[in-house]
Amino acid sequence: MRKIDVDDVADIGRGAAILGTGGGGDPQSGSLLATAALREYGPVQVLGLDDVEDSAWALPVAIIGAPTIMLEKLPTIGQVVAAVQQLAEYASRTPTHVLCAEAGGVNSLIPVAAAAALGLPLVDADAMGRAFPEIDQGLPALGGVMVTPAAVTDEKGNGVVVDTVDNHWAERLARAAAIEMGCAAAISAAAMNGRQVRELMVPGTLSLCAELGRLTGPNRPGHEDPVAAVARRLSGKVVFTGKVVDVDRRTEKGFARGVARIAGLDADEGSETVVRFQNEFLVAERDGTAMVSTPDLICILDSATGAGVRAEILRYGQRVSVLAAPADPRWHTPEGHALAGPRAFGYDADPVRV
Amino acid sequence: MRKIDVDDVADIGRGAAILGTGGGGDPQSGSLLATAALREYGPVQVLGLDDVEDSAWALPVAIIGAPTIMLEKLPTIGQVVAAVQQLAEYASRTPTHVLCAEAGGVNSLIPVAAAAALGLPLVDADAMGRAFPEIDQGLPALGGVMVTPAAVTDEKGNGVVVDTVDNHWAERLARAAAIEMGCAAAISAAAMNGRQVRELMVPGTLSLCAELGRLTGPNRPGHEDPVAAVARRLSGKVVFTGKVVDVDRRTEKGFARGVARIAGLDADEGSETVVRFQNEFLVAERDGTAMVSTPDLICILDSATGAGVRAEILRYGQRVSVLAAPADPRWHTPEGHALAGPRAFGYDADPVRV
Repeated sequence: MRKIDVDDVADIGRGAAILGTGGGGDPQSGSLLATAALREYGPVQVLGLDDVEDSAWALPVAIIGAPTIMLEKLPTIGQVVAAVQQLAEYASRTPTHVLCAEAGGVNSLIPVAAAAALGLPLVDADAMGRAFPEIDQGLPALGGVMVTPAAVTDEKGNGVVVDTVDNHWAERLARAAAIEMGCAAAISAAAMNGRQVRELMVPGTLSLCAELGRLTGPNRPGHEDPVAAVARRLSGKVVFTGKVVDVDRRTEKGFARGVARIAGLDADEGSETVVRFQNEFLVAERDGTAMVSTPDLICILDSATGAGVRAEILRYGQRVSVLAAPADPRWHTPEGHALAGPRAFGYDADPVRV
Repeated sequence: MRKIDVDDVADIGRGAAILGTGGGGDPQSGSLLATAALREYGPVQVLGLDDVEDSAWALPVAIIGAPTIMLEKLPTIGQVVAAVQQLAEYASRTPTHVLCAEAGGVNSLIPVAAAAALGLPLVDADAMGRAFPEIDQGLPALGGVMVTPAAVTDEKGNGVVVDTVDNHWAERLARAAAIEMGCAAAISAAAMNGRQVRELMVPGTLSLCAELGRLTGPNRPGHEDPVAAVARRLSGKVVFTGKVVDVDRRTEKGFARGVARIAGLDADEGSETVVRFQNEFLVAERDGTAMVSTPDLICILDSATGAGVRAEILRYGQRVSVLAAPADPRWHTPEGHALAGPRAFGYDADPVRV
């Protein structure tokens, strides 16, 4: 993938909604924003990790907050550009590249819009290889990159620059600002030089999103079940198939949190799977026993189309397949588990890997 | 008053605790900080409003949060200096003077400490002529000064720079940061040029604090009752004398809020006065009817010594006198009442003036 234009947006959004593991926001609002920006400013140049020189100063940009809120509180291009510009001004540096902080419906497309509007190249990568709810839960932070200074902006023109002693405080203070801004805000954080980008980002995420989007889109290949195709591409497996029978969801402390219950169908008839989420799906339990948990990917797919079903749109009656897929191996270290394993989210258990 | 040295600190703190109208923080913690700074850096030069040239860039500095919390979470000189420095760095300007944002036990002495540590002159003035709980409730803001950019800092080294579209959002976002920092933080905000300082600040507040402190201190003149002396100096009157019989106080949304009940003694025997507060005393009702309300000053004084009794230390059994005194006349305008009258705090009533 050497450039992104209007025609690529829908596929990227669709694929990102799968890799977003329930979070990462609505691809529809991301698509609207990216499409508008690409129409106005032209296509975005996409670079591979190896194309990023040492002298780069690359800025991730994303929307943080509760996806339940983002459904109605749509981001603006101005707000996204302002986050990058305020961070650059605070740091007295000129950004050279835009980065994706995570894979997710909104958060894989916001950087496309930002890169278009800023006239900067975008790097075909992301910082998580999936989505996570907290801003310090990225591989760059795991590798020692400071998340702050970070700029948090709303659609009204308000901005907050956070500069902290560690990444834990970065999450706390940026989250407080995002909550006060209405539980959804743009953020630019965890600026990196070229060496850090090459070493700490997950390569090829935008290309992977586009590929997953094609496998599950209206022109998907007819010869393979789309759920199976996604599982194959992510080296994962379908661990449960059923019908959503209950969703307990609330917007709490700036996140969409809750539990979904899926009653088994077909081979899983008689079993029940419970999926617990904080923006992203974190733990999937079959009949009371964890089958898979964070940092590995738990994706809930529409059983018919393979489309990613996000936590904020889960509802009674949906026929879904629960897909488990391995996380980037860098998450499977003691430090990675401490930052984004079940205990980081309050579950007293070790990660259960695919 | 041309300079402030260690010997002046106790008087200023004592007087500021009266003008603080229940809020403004504990003079003891402010005294410790100011004394330490004056010992280390030497006395602070004090200028009158007329001494401030047009070219000045003067920065108010204060502690925001809940005084109930500040009793245990003491500010540091480093944190206060960092607030000024982070604001200056963000604005790419060099501060020329330190200002008092309000009159209050902590907030009249924090600027002394900051001026000493920064080697800058302090202006004998404040922005309210009393204390108010919210950062946009100053005469400069009333006169059109933007409260942001503002820098909010904690004692750990974390900082947040807030830059907003209006002063209402300044209060919201700075408050959110202060709450996340533990309900007490240093802030520098509402930077002013010399003309703004001269036109919009209340002159002589530090001198007045020192004078009130002498009238109520251990060496107070023996010929006059200290409560009467304070009332005379503030052109106010004692509206109630009694004993505190109940205090309902909570730390809520970053403020100390509550209600105190005072049973009348002597001439007020048989009557009860209720004082409602949000950090500061806002409304005093005698037997159900408001006697005085914000923006006029409601000061609760120890009946024996004239010492200011702050909202966070009110307790059963204290013998107190409720003093009402006129606010700076600039508060008694429709705009002043909208910003800091009873309705600004949720009371559906017009101000009751002394």
